[in-house]
Amino acid sequence: MPQLLPRARASQESVFARMSRLAAHHRAVNLGQGFPADAPPAFLLDAARRAVGTLDQYSPPAGLPALRDAIGADLGVDGGDVIVTCGATEALNVLALSLYGPRDDGSRDEVLMLEPVFDVYIPQTRLAGATPVTVPMTLSEAGGWSLNLEALKAAVTPRTRALLLNSPYNPTGTVFSREELTEIVALARRHDLWIISDEVYDELYFGEKPVPLRELAPERTFTVGSAGKRLEATGWRVGWIACPPASADPHRAAAGVAANIAGVRQQGSFCSPTPLQAAVAAALPLARAEGFYAGLRAEYRARQDLLAGGLRGLGATVFQPQGTYFLTAIHPEWRAEALVERGVAVIPGEAFYAQHPAPEGLLRVAFCKSRDEIVQALERLTAITAATA
Amino acid sequence: MPQLLPRARASQESVFARMSRLAAHHRAVNLGQGFPADAPPAFLLDAARRAVGTLDQYSPPAGLPALRDAIGADLGVDGGDVIVTCGATEALNVLALSLYGPRDDGSRDEVLMLEPVFDVYIPQTRLAGATPVTVPMTLSEAGGWSLNLEALKAAVTPRTRALLLNSPYNPTGTVFSREELTEIVALARRHDLWIISDEVYDELYFGEKPVPLRELAPERTFTVGSAGKRLEATGWRVGWIACPPASADPHRAAAGVAANIAGVRQQGSFCSPTPLQAAVAAALPLARAEGFYAGLRAEYRARQDLLAGGLRGLGATVFQPQGTYFLTAIHPEWRAEALVERGVAVIPGEAFYAQHPAPEGLLRVAFCKSRDEIVQALERLTAITAATA
Repeated sequence: MPQLLPRARASQESVFARMSRLAAHHRAVNLGQGFPADAPPAFLLDAARRAVGTLDQYSPPAGLPALRDAIGADLGVDGGDVIVTCGATEALNVLALSLYGPRDDGSRDEVLMLEPVFDVYIPQTRLAGATPVTVPMTLSEAGGWSLNLEALKAAVTPRTRALLLNSPYNPTGTVFSREELTEIVALARRHDLWIISDEVYDELYFGEKPVPLRELAPERTFTVGSAGKRLEATGWRVGWIACPPASADPHRAAAGVAANIAGVRQQGSFCSPTPLQAAVAAALPLARAEGFYAGLRAEYRARQDLLAGGLRGLGATVFQPQGTYFLTAIHPEWRAEALVERGVAVIPGEAFYAQHPAPEGLLRVAFCKSRDEIVQALERLTAITAATA
Repeated sequence: MPQLLPRARASQESVFARMSRLAAHHRAVNLGQGFPADAPPAFLLDAARRAVGTLDQYSPPAGLPALRDAIGADLGVDGGDVIVTCGATEALNVLALSLYGPRDDGSRDEVLMLEPVFDVYIPQTRLAGATPVTVPMTLSEAGGWSLNLEALKAAVTPRTRALLLNSPYNPTGTVFSREELTEIVALARRHDLWIISDEVYDELYFGEKPVPLRELAPERTFTVGSAGKRLEATGWRVGWIACPPASADPHRAAAGVAANIAGVRQQGSFCSPTPLQAAVAAALPLARAEGFYAGLRAEYRARQDLLAGGLRGLGATVFQPQGTYFLTAIHPEWRAEALVERGVAVIPGEAFYAQHPAPEGLLRVAFCKSRDEIVQALERLTAITAATA
């Protein structure tokens, strides 16, 4: 019998899918996978119900023109530089296939990323034929998570082709400062690296508004975004790539890199779901005009406080996030595999570590869940902690 | 400035996207890209409007369990062997990444396919790091399209890993006979090849019902299917892979190859649009129970007759399809690039040829369009042909 390729045999169920499956099996409160408990806003749902039955056929691989323009207007870029994808996962995969891989001399490009690392970065890099190289974040009980810029600089080799960053950062909740990003951009320019900036949580921040990396390095930055994260519809599969603008490099073709990126994307899934694209195109300006994101931030800030306060009361060290809808925490007695069996699903920290040891007992806990779910999870954790005390 | 990889720089807009764009620009009747003029059936649309607002978050990468079971029941396979994808394009891409690529010794796997070839097969094979090898179909004015089995056998080398077939066959309209498929299966078994059987038009046939390849070679056949093609919603991005069953190979893992295929798929787009999956799950048994496919075949048969009769009346040689919603034709004076400027978009035959010369003047013409569109296209072709006569 023929065999699958090693790269396929190495592909496994993601920790998020697995923990959601275990949560359902054990009837656990699911503070694991990052999907919100709340329904998407009515202005998005109404637009989708109108589009179904009207816009049901193929759309251009680069995206519905109305959606490309709506994303461009929202981000402050040209809609012609925006490529719509089936979610941010596909955006990241298309960029992996386009920017790095094996070379004709048999060598493999290297891609720098931080650890803890969002779970698709490493397998996508390997599927593309390149080598992921991770640099660990520093974690201290007092100071929380911080970037080790010297270690990042030291990890660059002649084979390094790209930096893959995430801010607001899942799972740490870090929002990199303008000063940190400026240093990162200088590094990328010195070594002529692409920058892939995963900004799917760009509207979910609790302090300073995150600085988009494309504003500091427009010529080399691909911004990855997600309607699912912004509009609370993670199952809709509408994400995007904002490419470096054609004007940033006079030596590039007139259409810029966006045309080639669209070409790779069309081999992956041809186009994104047309009626849902139309709905997102209608919803993006409404979300901005109606203050939807500000409302979301206020609500999630309150739920974060509820969760963090409860966890601290149970003896956990909580590292307060500056963005995303996750927090990280350490409790000497809690381990994710045991908690899910006792009714609370969270993501184990080891799931975000591949090349360095995970901090002992690290957990990622989602607060994009209902207040009732958070309260119920805290009650169960109280019982679990009392039982082991 | 960094550069895209060669595989990305080689990626271009597909001929279908390009002809649809030109058709819009020239206000041409679009008999090019294969999307239907008719709306999807009401039972599908109603189910989608119900699912929107209810099932909006991530679903498992392998697909909603209800949809996997519905596809399994429809095809007569176990739902556990079905993996849902963002359209058949993603199904084909996931299989390319899973089944063939570069080897550790620097060689590349070869994949056998027929020419004319559906446009994604070659670029997907190259993106996966393997080498596409095409074998031309024979075309004769009297006999139409036929498979050259001897040429297929002769093209197998020690590096050949898979056969990629399409029946009903876009663009030729061929439905391979049980005898032809039996010979193909014998060839695959002799050389231990995977079979990828693209059966997205499985319900669109005009003579004998197509034989699913998986019935002849369950142990090595991946069947690719499409809710978009079956249910007239090509923009919904719900396709599937039916994998060889776990029971077909006692040496494989208990979960069979489906678990690994789901793992690769989850790196590509994580999951398919959840509300649209739910709608397809509800619609598949209804489509069967209500005779939807039989009605579709009758209607498309009538439109095919209308189109083919009109084209023959204008002097074209029409090769009658046994399936799909396309016909191929040759007219000594018609060229696709000129026709679109004069109001009729069709796909040039050369778009389906990469390694062998296309038959002179070959065109693919879609009849999944409204009767009005077909009549209007014929009127325009009449005027064009009279003007050049």
